[in-house]
Amino acid sequence: MSKEILKLGIPAGSLLKATVALFGKAGFEITNSQRSYMPSIDDEQIELLMLRAQEMSRYVADGVLDAGITGYDWIMENGSEVEQITELAYSKATSQPTRWVLAVPNESKVKKAEDLKSGIIATELVNVTKKYFADKKIDVKVEFSWGATEVKSRLVDAIVELTETGASLGANNLRIIDTVITSTTRFIANKQAWQDKFKRDKIESIAILLNAAIEARSKVGLKLNVKKDDLKAILKILPSEKSPTVSNLAESDFVAIEVVIDEKVERTLVPSLKQAGASGIITYPLNKVIH
Amino acid sequence: MSKEILKLGIPAGSLLKATVALFGKAGFEITNSQRSYMPSIDDEQIELLMLRAQEMSRYVADGVLDAGITGYDWIMENGSEVEQITELAYSKATSQPTRWVLAVPNESKVKKAEDLKSGIIATELVNVTKKYFADKKIDVKVEFSWGATEVKSRLVDAIVELTETGASLGANNLRIIDTVITSTTRFIANKQAWQDKFKRDKIESIAILLNAAIEARSKVGLKLNVKKDDLKAILKILPSEKSPTVSNLAESDFVAIEVVIDEKVERTLVPSLKQAGASGIITYPLNKVIH
Amino acid sequence: MSKEILKLGIPAGSLLKATVALFGKAGFEITNSQRSYMPSIDDEQIELLMLRAQEMSRYVADGVLDAGITGYDWIMENGSEVEQITELAYSKATSQPTRWVLAVPNESKVKKAEDLKSGIIATELVNVTKKYFADKKIDVKVEFSWGATEVKSRLVDAIVELTETGASLGANNLRIIDTVITSTTRFIANKQAWQDKFKRDKIESIAILLNAAIEARSKVGLKLNVKKDDLKAILKILPSEKSPTVSNLAESDFVAIEVVIDEKVERTLVPSLKQAGASGIITYPLNKVIH
Amino acid sequence: MSKEILKLGIPAGSLLKATVALFGKAGFEITNSQRSYMPSIDDEQIELLMLRAQEMSRYVADGVLDAGITGYDWIMENGSEVEQITELAYSKATSQPTRWVLAVPNESKVKKAEDLKSGIIATELVNVTKKYFADKKIDVKVEFSWGATEVKSRLVDAIVELTETGASLGANNLRIIDTVITSTTRFIANKQAWQDKFKRDKIESIAILLNAAIEARSKVGLKLNVKKDDLKAILKILPSEKSPTVSNLAESDFVAIEVVIDEKVERTLVPSLKQAGASGIITYPLNKVIH
Amino acid sequence: MSKEILKLGIPAGSLLKATVALFGKAGFEITNSQRSYMPSIDDEQIELLMLRAQEMSRYVADGVLDAGITGYDWIMENGSEVEQITELAYSKATSQPTRWVLAVPNESKVKKAEDLKSGIIATELVNVTKKYFADKKIDVKVEFSWGATEVKSRLVDAIVELTETGASLGANNLRIIDTVITSTTRFIANKQAWQDKFKRDKIESIAILLNAAIEARSKVGLKLNVKKDDLKAILKILPSEKSPTVSNLAESDFVAIEVVIDEKVERTLVPSLKQAGASGIITYPLNKVIH
Amino acid sequence: MSKEILKLGIPAGSLLKATVALFGKAGFEITNSQRSYMPSIDDEQIELLMLRAQEMSRYVADGVLDAGITGYDWIMENGSEVEQITELAYSKATSQPTRWVLAVPNESKVKKAEDLKSGIIATELVNVTKKYFADKKIDVKVEFSWGATEVKSRLVDAIVELTETGASLGANNLRIIDTVITSTTRFIANKQAWQDKFKRDKIESIAILLNAAIEARSKVGLKLNVKKDDLKAILKILPSEKSPTVSNLAESDFVAIEVVIDEKVERTLVPSLKQAGASGIITYPLNKVIH
Repeated sequence: MSKEILKLGIPAGSLLKATVALFGKAGFEITNSQRSYMPSIDDEQIELLMLRAQEMSRYVADGVLDAGITGYDWIMENGSEVEQITELAYSKATSQPTRWVLAVPNESKVKKAEDLKSGIIATELVNVTKKYFADKKIDVKVEFSWGATEVKSRLVDAIVELTETGASLGANNLRIIDTVITSTTRFIANKQAWQDKFKRDKIESIAILLNAAIEARSKVGLKLNVKKDDLKAILKILPSEKSPTVSNLAESDFVAIEVVIDEKVERTLVPSLKQAGASGIITYPLNKVIH
Repeated sequence: MSKEILKLGIPAGSLLKATVALFGKAGFEITNSQRSYMPSIDDEQIELLMLRAQEMSRYVADGVLDAGITGYDWIMENGSEVEQITELAYSKATSQPTRWVLAVPNESKVKKAEDLKSGIIATELVNVTKKYFADKKIDVKVEFSWGATEVKSRLVDAIVELTETGASLGANNLRIIDTVITSTTRFIANKQAWQDKFKRDKIESIAILLNAAIEARSKVGLKLNVKKDDLKAILKILPSEKSPTVSNLAESDFVAIEVVIDEKVERTLVPSLKQAGASGIITYPLNKVIH
Repeated sequence: MSKEILKLGIPAGSLLKATVALFGKAGFEITNSQRSYMPSIDDEQIELLMLRAQEMSRYVADGVLDAGITGYDWIMENGSEVEQITELAYSKATSQPTRWVLAVPNESKVKKAEDLKSGIIATELVNVTKKYFADKKIDVKVEFSWGATEVKSRLVDAIVELTETGASLGANNLRIIDTVITSTTRFIANKQAWQDKFKRDKIESIAILLNAAIEARSKVGLKLNVKKDDLKAILKILPSEKSPTVSNLAESDFVAIEVVIDEKVERTLVPSLKQAGASGIITYPLNKVIH
Repeated sequence: MSKEILKLGIPAGSLLKATVALFGKAGFEITNSQRSYMPSIDDEQIELLMLRAQEMSRYVADGVLDAGITGYDWIMENGSEVEQITELAYSKATSQPTRWVLAVPNESKVKKAEDLKSGIIATELVNVTKKYFADKKIDVKVEFSWGATEVKSRLVDAIVELTETGASLGANNLRIIDTVITSTTRFIANKQAWQDKFKRDKIESIAILLNAAIEARSKVGLKLNVKKDDLKAILKILPSEKSPTVSNLAESDFVAIEVVIDEKVERTLVPSLKQAGASGIITYPLNKVIH
Repeated sequence: MSKEILKLGIPAGSLLKATVALFGKAGFEITNSQRSYMPSIDDEQIELLMLRAQEMSRYVADGVLDAGITGYDWIMENGSEVEQITELAYSKATSQPTRWVLAVPNESKVKKAEDLKSGIIATELVNVTKKYFADKKIDVKVEFSWGATEVKSRLVDAIVELTETGASLGANNLRIIDTVITSTTRFIANKQAWQDKFKRDKIESIAILLNAAIEARSKVGLKLNVKKDDLKAILKILPSEKSPTVSNLAESDFVAIEVVIDEKVERTLVPSLKQAGASGIITYPLNKVIH
Repeated sequence: MSKEILKLGIPAGSLLKATVALFGKAGFEITNSQRSYMPSIDDEQIELLMLRAQEMSRYVADGVLDAGITGYDWIMENGSEVEQITELAYSKATSQPTRWVLAVPNESKVKKAEDLKSGIIATELVNVTKKYFADKKIDVKVEFSWGATEVKSRLVDAIVELTETGASLGANNLRIIDTVITSTTRFIANKQAWQDKFKRDKIESIAILLNAAIEARSKVGLKLNVKKDDLKAILKILPSEKSPTVSNLAESDFVAIEVVIDEKVERTLVPSLKQAGASGIITYPLNKVIH
């Protein structure tokens, strides 16, 4: 039955490799993504299409796709009416959302958005930028920029440009005036597809698996053995949020402890555990973590 | 003693990287494979030689090598008398065997092999192709093609070419008429070497480790905790083939369950488990799985 | 408080990628290392600087850096007074230390260091080489070579050059006369920084985590189930150094065994275990191992 | 005096390399174009800025630039009021202009533009496309496509896409319905700058030199010696448009002939000249040709 | 009329780039050669097909192609009956023909071909090698090698391999025993096509232009002015083969001399000319030279 | 006779490609320079060795080489006693010499060399830098820096670093305090070799050819026809340094003019010539120009 297919959009470009890797960790193998805009996936209920993040939400809103992965910024830019299923925090090295910032040359006299009155703003994110200035009742002309927007910062009055760490702006001697919008990656669905039993189940199932894979990236499994006498002390040291699995060992006065911890905690936890009497401490990588 | 060495051939070219990775997972580190045709391996009982898959079986049959990895297609093409130890399903993204197909241009009038009578067939797999037509008692001329065979499809009457997904044939507007041979990767041994105690043990040991590593690629370890009351329900959901390891937890009304599952099953299994009362569900990658 | 920062040097060049990977496994994410000589790290107590291994010890000795990673050879060459915290055996495919060797063309009449009296030696490691000859009371002229030293071997009387496997020397038809110094990677600290409580704790904590990650690279976790009756036999086969974790299974006449083993042992261990009655044997990768 | 500077825009991207080469042939050395958006040029009266062809005409129209090089298509798309100084036929291998074509999937029922009524058209050239349909009084929705437009041809009803040879369209199984606009590269100027004596002289001088370099690319210098008796016959064979330079040789019954010919003519001309008695025939490359 | 097309094969692989450049210098622009096996050429009477040099002569002999460019070695290997129009000395840096040599490991006891009796020879050039040994009445087994033949030199008794400078053989510690065949690039034609007026004319015209371009590569045009009194002395110094063009200058006691010389002669000629009174000496590059 | 060989050093690294191209234009073909440190050259009297520019003068001074190409900076750094034959202005895009500059961070308080008293200076050019400060009687510590010196500018007090345009310094926010040394590329000879008749002749001949090729790079040949009546006016416009070659044409009231001009002059010359009545103006590239 043709209805039993979910048409899913994945983002071309800089996010593609990370997306294929994430689906891989979630248990879906995507092949052929380098050679074709219709990559294969080893799930017969899914049909993939690779599109630029900028256009994704439009095709989801129109129903050309049932669901897709894109950024919040471009959903806003396109003004697309879509269901936002979940945030997917997999796209970047750092854990902060990306920002579109209003920036001017270091040497500019502009100090705040209001100083740009009657000025020209170059950006790829035209509609969001127009709304930003309209909300502030500042009259400016917003022009579409075809990439390399920093370069034009000295041809116009200000730019609105994407930044993660601000490094590229600094290298171009630009100064940030304000944040126009912050954005994270989103899993979105067409509103009608979301009402369809099969599609909704499939979308939710994909969302669970993707999030379980994302969650697992920053976690590790921790195992250790401890004398029953030291158990209480050890349990106090362990992060309290998740209760550890304690199992009796054949050797009667020892227990084995297993727990999933945040990888960052390891740095300080492991030395403390050793000091508190733990032995045979190991950590191991995880594929998925479901709370 | 010089007898205690196994001379092992690994395939150069497109399979090399995957082969080195597979040996790595199997516990053998192959180094220097980019720079030398005699790569190093961290096992003093093995001496490696890198050869093209097309020639491997000839050198194994001749006893220049004791064992080697190559494709079934080239064993047939060379008509080599060798022991086929095991299939090694590691070489491709997809799980289907590769096929050598008889193909003609879309616009050709040829519909079946018989229509090619008195025609010219270009292929890299000359002997297998000759046998295919001889078995069908169709008289054709089979010519050796030095790669890029698709290009010649319009210079001759038909080609016999390797395909995995058919994508390359489609891109060249070719139509598949028939499958001439299907092939998978094989671990083969010289017949005399196979009678030698040391070599046979070594070959079998390598075969076990390679297959354990291959097996592990599509499996994950699954752990979860469950109340004793829910245990029966959970066990019903779990794949029955492998009996799970159930261990008592210190906290007396809970048990921990561990089981190795097929990664593909995860997609549907994990949500069911959660619904059935499982908690602390994690999956983790495996290096080797031995049944 | 500005004191609470550890200034840490990591080696640019061939070791960089492996270093970033090692820190990653140790739980520290280093970003931006391709674009900047001041990479970011997700630990606010650490400030990274990327420098060439050759210069590292000088900047650590001077206190510009609190700690750094470099080779023993360059510590000696610079004659730097630094604390050597630990060896870090992560830098090479093979497990042998690198060597700086005295080498001459195959056709040279020189057989031993003494034959080079009054000769010219080209090397990047000028001071160590001078000391080597001074210790032997052989009078030679040692000249600094800007890389590609092999090439100059026929312009001077001998060279002192780095080698791992000797392959590059062989390819240049050079013959090794003697080893001048062997070297491994070291984690070093400034002597004053080592007296500072915060810095010393931080350095030791990093050392533990790096070594735990290195240790884990050559180990795997092994799990298997076995009938209680077979337990003794199995335990005899397992490597004795680390006591395995034995836990009772719900199914009363079986126990589960877990142990960390050296990946190399697997090759021979796994078949023996199977023969001794073990079932459900799996191995899995580890992130860290702390004894 | 600051007025004595011409601000000139050159196109980033696929045309950049050819543009730098053309300026080189015209006698201007552009350096640093790989690293900076403000490349250097060895003419103190020119200041370069590298911008995408899509935006160039906007910045020329606004006076940010005095002149620039871009395509006719993007001048039309932006609706920019600029002076079009000259066509520059340097950008492509072939001598035909590029075309933006209306295309549909091979399998589409659409035969002509009119069949697309109420349909959706994806294109990078939104305004030109809208005008094309408005002129034909066909009501369609034109949507901006962020590159890779062919891919979307099966998501919408038709696309308008750039093509030189049609090869890429064919590879995507698309069928051309109509040509929306043809385009060549143009040298354009700001209308006010064009009224300024210095700038106009400079622009015209650049135009002459660029065109002389372009002209020279398809021409060669031809030299030959001939007996005075054969001169008339030879002159008849030579292309008549340009009168050849005939000079007397010291050896009195011979003359030398020099003429600039189209490189394509060579193929047929040279054999004829030889037959007609010419000797010492050589051709040589030209840097510039000014009629 | 379909007859007015010449089907021309050009060699894929290592010769392709040089071939495209040569045709360019000869006045034919070949485009699209990176992306298609049917490159375009700006001559409507020519249709190109790109094939491996190894197979070219077979397709020319069969009439699939009218003419083609390939090596003498592969014409012999295929035993193809074709017209050899001309040698084309464009393919290599050096001016010597390539050689297929019989080579053995340095450490082999084999000194001459006869010592290989009953041995195995690996080569890509099976038929030529068989004939070589048959002519010498030496019984050997010749096996087809799929590239990287040097590697196999220690698995068989000898190899027959292509070499230009012997460098690659030396690097593999191989010793040359004999030369089996020398080869140069050839322009060949199908025997029937050679009888066709249009095709023969076209083939000859292409041959003239290609050779004129090849000839021009090692020549330069030389110009100088000299006093009439010094003319005799200068003429004596100039290479005598080609008579120089001497023209009277307006300034009555001076003449201008032009001559085409071999670029290599320049090295010694130019200083002598200066000494003999020449002034304004320049040399310039040539596109074509026809004697 | 072995004496009839000139051992010539060419610089490895960034200058190599330009050097090979220059020798090519000068009439010498250098091959194999990518693969070997002993490249081939098609002149049996020359033997090439590729060395880093930094070491070249040392090997020339020692007589290991007869002559070599290197920078003035490194001759000074090594304090090598060599003959400086000629400057070779071929190495850079711009025509200015490179400079080694004393630089400090923008934010440093250092304004002049004297402010660095007792400071640490990092540089690759240790001896020249020491002399610079010694001449000024400023006491500093100069430390050898292994490349990437800019990075260390904030670890020490100042750096001495190579710069062409200052761009890299600016990008690192460094400020130039002073120029320590300016440098150009030099052709140098060993003092004894310079006394040898054969070697001196050969060195001088190479110098002439290299300089003739360098000279030709910035020149073009210019040809035009003009009526005898306009000759005087045209001659006035032409650069006066070089007297043009004027030849009578068969067509009696016209003369042909040829002259070598600086390519830069073309920009302004060509329009003037056209205005003054010249016709058939062409310019063509030159290989060599000897005054």
